[in-house]
Amino acid sequence: MRANYRLQRLFVDVDLAAGASIEADKNQFHYLAHVIRADEGSELLLFNGRDGEWLARLSYPTRKKITLEPVEQTRPQPPLPYLSYLFAPLKTGRMDYMVQKAVEMGVGRIQPVLTQHVQGKPAKSDRLRANIIEAAEQCGVLAVPDLDEPVKLPELMENWDADRRLIFCDEADEHQNPVTALGEIKEKKLALLIGPEGGFSDEERALLHELPFVTAIPLGPRILRADTAAVAALAVIQATIGDWK
Amino acid sequence: MRANYRLQRLFVDVDLAAGASIEADKNQFHYLAHVIRADEGSELLLFNGRDGEWLARLSYPTRKKITLEPVEQTRPQPPLPYLSYLFAPLKTGRMDYMVQKAVEMGVGRIQPVLTQHVQGKPAKSDRLRANIIEAAEQCGVLAVPDLDEPVKLPELMENWDADRRLIFCDEADEHQNPVTALGEIKEKKLALLIGPEGGFSDEERALLHELPFVTAIPLGPRILRADTAAVAALAVIQATIGDWK
Repeated sequence: MRANYRLQRLFVDVDLAAGASIEADKNQFHYLAHVIRADEGSELLLFNGRDGEWLARLSYPTRKKITLEPVEQTRPQPPLPYLSYLFAPLKTGRMDYMVQKAVEMGVGRIQPVLTQHVQGKPAKSDRLRANIIEAAEQCGVLAVPDLDEPVKLPELMENWDADRRLIFCDEADEHQNPVTALGEIKEKKLALLIGPEGGFSDEERALLHELPFVTAIPLGPRILRADTAAVAALAVIQATIGDWK
Repeated sequence: MRANYRLQRLFVDVDLAAGASIEADKNQFHYLAHVIRADEGSELLLFNGRDGEWLARLSYPTRKKITLEPVEQTRPQPPLPYLSYLFAPLKTGRMDYMVQKAVEMGVGRIQPVLTQHVQGKPAKSDRLRANIIEAAEQCGVLAVPDLDEPVKLPELMENWDADRRLIFCDEADEHQNPVTALGEIKEKKLALLIGPEGGFSDEERALLHELPFVTAIPLGPRILRADTAAVAALAVIQATIGDWK
């Protein structure tokens, strides 16, 4: 079922059920009352990442307060996709963008990974979380990805769930086609790892190549920036072994 | 052959040949002397979109002047890819980003298209051109895409070269897999059309669907922003019928 993208969509962190009365928080009030100037009785869509999407009606019990009342469920809650997204921190603007894109592209879990060549600081979880929610609101994504704490690459590899195939984009491997390499994957649970702008170190590449749960894929003959590589790899994964039916 | 991405890369619009003496223009001087503080005798890479990539040596004949001397060709000039990129204008920041991404993804021609639902103004050619060159410099792209003037969609369709297959992303067509649809394409010359944020109008969609040179592809079950759709579609095209061998 496709999202209705004419109505405003809003993430809330409370339970959604018919007849509940949800008070807009300060930021939501500002947005609804002052930015989009929603009228008494106007309709919008609510989601919380658990209870699907609900049509809701807005009212102003006082001039300083907005109440949202869920009326009916418009879409059921989909399960979180089996695709995790792991990335080395980038400069802030590009990282915001990259996290938003990962949500649009349908990942179920987002995990910052600390690598040897690092370009940015590990972003604050609050900021990453705000980007995740903004993208979910804008793109009608109901399965809001989980966010993990940053972890160092060797540690992540040591504690890896061997049933999850880890795909990483290897610039040095320019001869193979990514579609062929992805076609050989048998696992249902997947993860994509995008390295930092400077690429993985030789040591990290050697580590990744020797692990049995890792598939290296090339992304063509040109150098891609990390945020481009992320969207490109997610697109090829979704189109070949993911949920683009 | 992959680009060397440790050396600074600079686009110039003059001919490149061994022993030529190229004077840096004002912007280039500022960048080389003040931003990256290049030393006398330092090496960089030059390209002009015609003569391949050249290793060049930098000198300061005076304190206010930089001369660049091509020493030897490091990569030959590749032909322009047979993939055109057509897009409806977006808001400026996202359009800058989208044009840069299209260059990274290896398109040979960039064409703004005016559609019924338009979100931004047709960008100034100078700005689009600057984005093209910036992306080429950063990503080692030597085949600098040509830039066409904006044109209205019906006019573009009327004058279409029937040997070029036009691929457009149709949100309404969510059942087919893009890889299957792309696999049926026989033409070598391709173009990708990305609509505005609000999507194509019903009239435009009907027009596109009835043209014999058009292939509609879906991009999965989620709504993608136009700039995400662009990178995603280019990735799937390049990986299946493009130059990602």
